[in-house]
Amino acid sequence: MRDFTFQNATKVIFGRGAEEAVGAEAAALARKVLLHYGGGSVKRSGLFDRVVASLTEAGVDVVELGGVKPNPRLSLVEEGIALCRRERVDLILAVGGGSVIDSAKAIALGVPADGPLWDFFEGRAKPGEALPVGVILTLPAAGSETSPVSVITNERGLYKKGFRNALLRPRFALLNPELTFSLPAEQTRAGAVDMLAHVMERYFTNERDVELTDRLCEATMRTIVANLPRALTDPENYAARAELMWASTVAHCDLLDTGREGDWASHKIEHELSALYDVAHGIGLAVVFPAWMDYVVDHDPSRFAQFAHRVWDVEPDFFDPGRTAREGIARVVAFLRSCGLPTTLQELAIGDDRFDEMARKAVESGPIGAFVPLGESDVRAILERCR
Amino acid sequence: MRDFTFQNATKVIFGRGAEEAVGAEAAALARKVLLHYGGGSVKRSGLFDRVVASLTEAGVDVVELGGVKPNPRLSLVEEGIALCRRERVDLILAVGGGSVIDSAKAIALGVPADGPLWDFFEGRAKPGEALPVGVILTLPAAGSETSPVSVITNERGLYKKGFRNALLRPRFALLNPELTFSLPAEQTRAGAVDMLAHVMERYFTNERDVELTDRLCEATMRTIVANLPRALTDPENYAARAELMWASTVAHCDLLDTGREGDWASHKIEHELSALYDVAHGIGLAVVFPAWMDYVVDHDPSRFAQFAHRVWDVEPDFFDPGRTAREGIARVVAFLRSCGLPTTLQELAIGDDRFDEMARKAVESGPIGAFVPLGESDVRAILERCR
Repeated sequence: MRDFTFQNATKVIFGRGAEEAVGAEAAALARKVLLHYGGGSVKRSGLFDRVVASLTEAGVDVVELGGVKPNPRLSLVEEGIALCRRERVDLILAVGGGSVIDSAKAIALGVPADGPLWDFFEGRAKPGEALPVGVILTLPAAGSETSPVSVITNERGLYKKGFRNALLRPRFALLNPELTFSLPAEQTRAGAVDMLAHVMERYFTNERDVELTDRLCEATMRTIVANLPRALTDPENYAARAELMWASTVAHCDLLDTGREGDWASHKIEHELSALYDVAHGIGLAVVFPAWMDYVVDHDPSRFAQFAHRVWDVEPDFFDPGRTAREGIARVVAFLRSCGLPTTLQELAIGDDRFDEMARKAVESGPIGAFVPLGESDVRAILERCR
Repeated sequence: MRDFTFQNATKVIFGRGAEEAVGAEAAALARKVLLHYGGGSVKRSGLFDRVVASLTEAGVDVVELGGVKPNPRLSLVEEGIALCRRERVDLILAVGGGSVIDSAKAIALGVPADGPLWDFFEGRAKPGEALPVGVILTLPAAGSETSPVSVITNERGLYKKGFRNALLRPRFALLNPELTFSLPAEQTRAGAVDMLAHVMERYFTNERDVELTDRLCEATMRTIVANLPRALTDPENYAARAELMWASTVAHCDLLDTGREGDWASHKIEHELSALYDVAHGIGLAVVFPAWMDYVVDHDPSRFAQFAHRVWDVEPDFFDPGRTAREGIARVVAFLRSCGLPTTLQELAIGDDRFDEMARKAVESGPIGAFVPLGESDVRAILERCR
């Protein structure tokens, strides 16, 4: 087990009507908020009006900025920064999923910054402060609601990059599973893959003696695997929606990292995919992750066999652990397909013509992945397995 | 699943040499600390001197108060409060296990308070503030290092009572598994029972649809069960000590409570036992918990069967889940005994002469337990099963 520091101070309010706490939570931090969101669904559902009413009642002024898209763009972030400076906003409130939250975090980071925001993402500058961020979650997936990470796409060159700093961790996160009843099946399944992938990135580690975190990871993965089909069959099943929503947060709150090092190569490869083709992150992960597994399984068949047995109920073959390991990967693919997810690029109508470009960009800061460090030719080989 | 609020802001620094961070962490919060500890072992081991050196180097002044005993006493807490007021201490640093931490929290609570400290524990007053608390953990057991609870024994009447308030949650906790290498087997096993009991109290709930927290509880229990024997056989096994230490914190950090209600009757019955007989808390729990299980198993054989199967690898008897359930309890008892723990009062040389008194005191504020609410006669019946 590795040495570690763990601290996650986000206040989570979870359950029916959780969003009603927004006025009180915001008023404790700010006098004027930027209400940041994506498309029109938060307005059509009436959520927007309820949030504004709660804030107004608590004496908090509201400025709004919608239009966040999946793979949130730097240009909108820059627009938000200018707006917040002009309006003297002192809290960024994200109402939406991971893209909205990541965009809100980037705005919060940029408002008090002197230089260009992208310098933080490129590692050329370090922030001294950021505005506080609050969240009303409508799409459980990214785990951004308690994480200190923001992932932004810079349209100038189609770069998608993440930035991690404790300043970005939301101060509060309001999680009401009922708000997810109306999610389209497509977003429900893509979100579940994203959370599953967050756990798998952590699970595949070379660190020994990480029993508790292995088991906590397995607990979280089993819960996601059990509840995604229930939520797809019965979208208004509170129990299933609640399990998925809480699992999305637990998956990415840093607890499952403690004592170990994650891999994150699949995420980086998928970032290239969604930067070029604007694929939803979870959908891209459904294609990339099994291909990555297939490519690296021989590096540690024991770990893959444990994953297969404990998460996917594969009976162990003690004479051939590799067989158990490969059966686990087959079960992952079968599960994704049974939930209506694509597992090949062909299904996304993506050809092989830009494999070289993606492979080159994925490793341009050096090899990716900690479980098995991957170079350009490895990434290309994984993309070949994604066809 | 129940609605909940979850926030645990304690900064955990975990690993080899973690205690060396004490100077920097304390200096960020205070200019003068009360170094609070139990017996002489922290001095004999050299830990005390290392802590004082780190604090002094960071420019933090030190006042010391040792002498905390298991089931920490109100009289020493009151002595600590007077000392801190006199010396203008602004941080209480607990170096020890749960008793020392609980005593430190009570001092932190009492220093700025106007009225008698015990009023908080009796529910007659609410605190507005408390001094910050920091922890260097030497005995993984109580989980007090990130919990907002303090349990104190009032010698005037031998009352043992807990008080919960977010103000009591430690600001930092430094966890070095190497500091536990020298723990006597007796404390290692009693500590493990305490942490196991913290999870079991949460596990046995009437709340439905708590799959993720069920599984996180099972992950934590399996880890404790796997690693206690390793630590007893090989006290300097870093991996086993680290798993136990991190499990003690995870068990009691409130995450395993999310969405459900714990029972806590066994803890309350044990509190009566240790108030009267000064039994170590974990030892008392090893006696009381199986007796409680035996008394309440028929209330929900399905939950006990799940516990038996998922934590203790009992093969399910689908025709008779009650048989699976009872086999799980038998495995708990067998495990405790195999680790050298007593499971009867007879082994502790405690007779039945004060059963009535304990049963009466346990329920004097009303029935105890949420899974099965227990009255005086129920508590007496459980004590009978402890003989």
